[in-house]
Amino acid sequence: MRFATFRKGGTNGLAAANLDGGFHGLMADAPGFPGTLDALVAAGPKALAAAGQALLSAPAVDLAAVELLPPLAQPGKIICVGLNYADHSAESGFAVPTYPTIFARFTSSLIGHGAPILRPVLSDQLDFEGEFVAVIGLGGRHIAKDAALDHVIGYSLFNDGSVRDFQMKAPQWTVGKNFDSTGAFGPTLVTADELPPGCRGLRINTRLNGQVVQSASTDDLIFDVATLVSTLSEAFTLSPGDIIVTGTPAGVGLARKPPLWMKPGDVCEVEVERLGVLSNPVEDEPATGTARQRAAA
Amino acid sequence: MRFATFRKGGTNGLAAANLDGGFHGLMADAPGFPGTLDALVAAGPKALAAAGQALLSAPAVDLAAVELLPPLAQPGKIICVGLNYADHSAESGFAVPTYPTIFARFTSSLIGHGAPILRPVLSDQLDFEGEFVAVIGLGGRHIAKDAALDHVIGYSLFNDGSVRDFQMKAPQWTVGKNFDSTGAFGPTLVTADELPPGCRGLRINTRLNGQVVQSASTDDLIFDVATLVSTLSEAFTLSPGDIIVTGTPAGVGLARKPPLWMKPGDVCEVEVERLGVLSNPVEDEPATGTARQRAAA
Repeated sequence: MRFATFRKGGTNGLAAANLDGGFHGLMADAPGFPGTLDALVAAGPKALAAAGQALLSAPAVDLAAVELLPPLAQPGKIICVGLNYADHSAESGFAVPTYPTIFARFTSSLIGHGAPILRPVLSDQLDFEGEFVAVIGLGGRHIAKDAALDHVIGYSLFNDGSVRDFQMKAPQWTVGKNFDSTGAFGPTLVTADELPPGCRGLRINTRLNGQVVQSASTDDLIFDVATLVSTLSEAFTLSPGDIIVTGTPAGVGLARKPPLWMKPGDVCEVEVERLGVLSNPVEDEPATGTARQRAAA
Repeated sequence: MRFATFRKGGTNGLAAANLDGGFHGLMADAPGFPGTLDALVAAGPKALAAAGQALLSAPAVDLAAVELLPPLAQPGKIICVGLNYADHSAESGFAVPTYPTIFARFTSSLIGHGAPILRPVLSDQLDFEGEFVAVIGLGGRHIAKDAALDHVIGYSLFNDGSVRDFQMKAPQWTVGKNFDSTGAFGPTLVTADELPPGCRGLRINTRLNGQVVQSASTDDLIFDVATLVSTLSEAFTLSPGDIIVTGTPAGVGLARKPPLWMKPGDVCEVEVERLGVLSNPVEDEPATGTARQRAAA
């Protein structure tokens, strides 16, 4: 099934659909609301499936007529993988990694499908990175690789919008990866049972204004989902609602000559078969007060 | 005032003290409990001060007889600054930074005062990093430097326990900085009005088994608290309850010849004048199941 977290008239709601069907959903204040997707993911696959079945009897929801939010409001960890496709690692000037390169996003950087990715007042080096996301449904530590996919409840899409000059100001990338409204997440969570194990063998495309700028197979991941879950859990406990943003293939704007930056008026789309299309327009960050003074300085 | 979050008999509590007085507190299920420290920090300095005054009339709490928890249970962001003392940056092989080096911790890595820092099954390269913490009480974006300290509600201490071989396995340090039970935070939150502006001019010492292994002045920070708040807020919105772990001075175990690692039986203390002493024993991670099989392989 697919699940969409949305907002309408100042209230959040949750909608569900079969992979080929329309969405049906309830607002959070409606009788029978099954809980947020965060809570249902924490409750496990059976609870999630039961909630989905119940929602299918609820009124139809036109996703085009509501504001889509990130599927999860409060992922416990936003674990981002860098350099996880060999061709992207090479275009970024790195050798093929022997261990996953991990950085973190803060929840404050997240936006949903359709919301504008904001180009900062202080930079025009706003880059796209199409990725898919594995959502942890079952926590654990020291998870064996052959059991790792049992811990993944579903998948989604991500545009890891990166402010390159800030990313490169210091040895760690965190600031350039955490500007407000640069991490697009959605449009839906698709349960793992609808997808090949580990989300393998699917085409991932990123399009900027309709032009394909990144295209790869999810088979090209250096560290696949099972390896990531197992390897990361050697260090820390994974918990339901943690998300792993699995990395981007070659073609990012930074590696092009000349560089290709996103700018206001652009539309960036990330598509993976069966996961749908995550589409976001690009707008300028509103420049007010101190921000405007600094940019002008 | 000082605030301590603690646990006793399966219930959390909050205690407060004047800087030179004893702690008085209430359990979360007691009448008159003013709320968690996370909630009071979000409510602002006046609400926090009022709660503290009210708690002073509550029963005395012997902090030595309860389990101290991290002062905040769920910091929205755990923003860690690397290479923020010139001597530590040099011993780590980096030039003096011109921009803050930022990495993130996940909440899953946090422990309180007195809880064991765990040496992982998979590494013996467990290092200490004594630091002080600035706690955001007033959120904002594009905060001017001359107003930045108004956004800091208090300070605390941190031992940024680092698993060095994992930290260096990839270009980003995140994994080695996020092992379970390696980030000690506490013992208390001291409100900013008890301290010099920006927590400047204070001696910071780290002791391993009583021996001073790091000693510096908080004046030696390359990027002081006001600069960090202002600079970080250029990229993302700071919110109440976010914490900035400000960086560690020279003397870490990695930079010594031979390296000095923490091992079971050790006790590591971080002390800053007026902020108290954060003390943690070191124990081995319990090696069970898959973890034990892997370490033996």
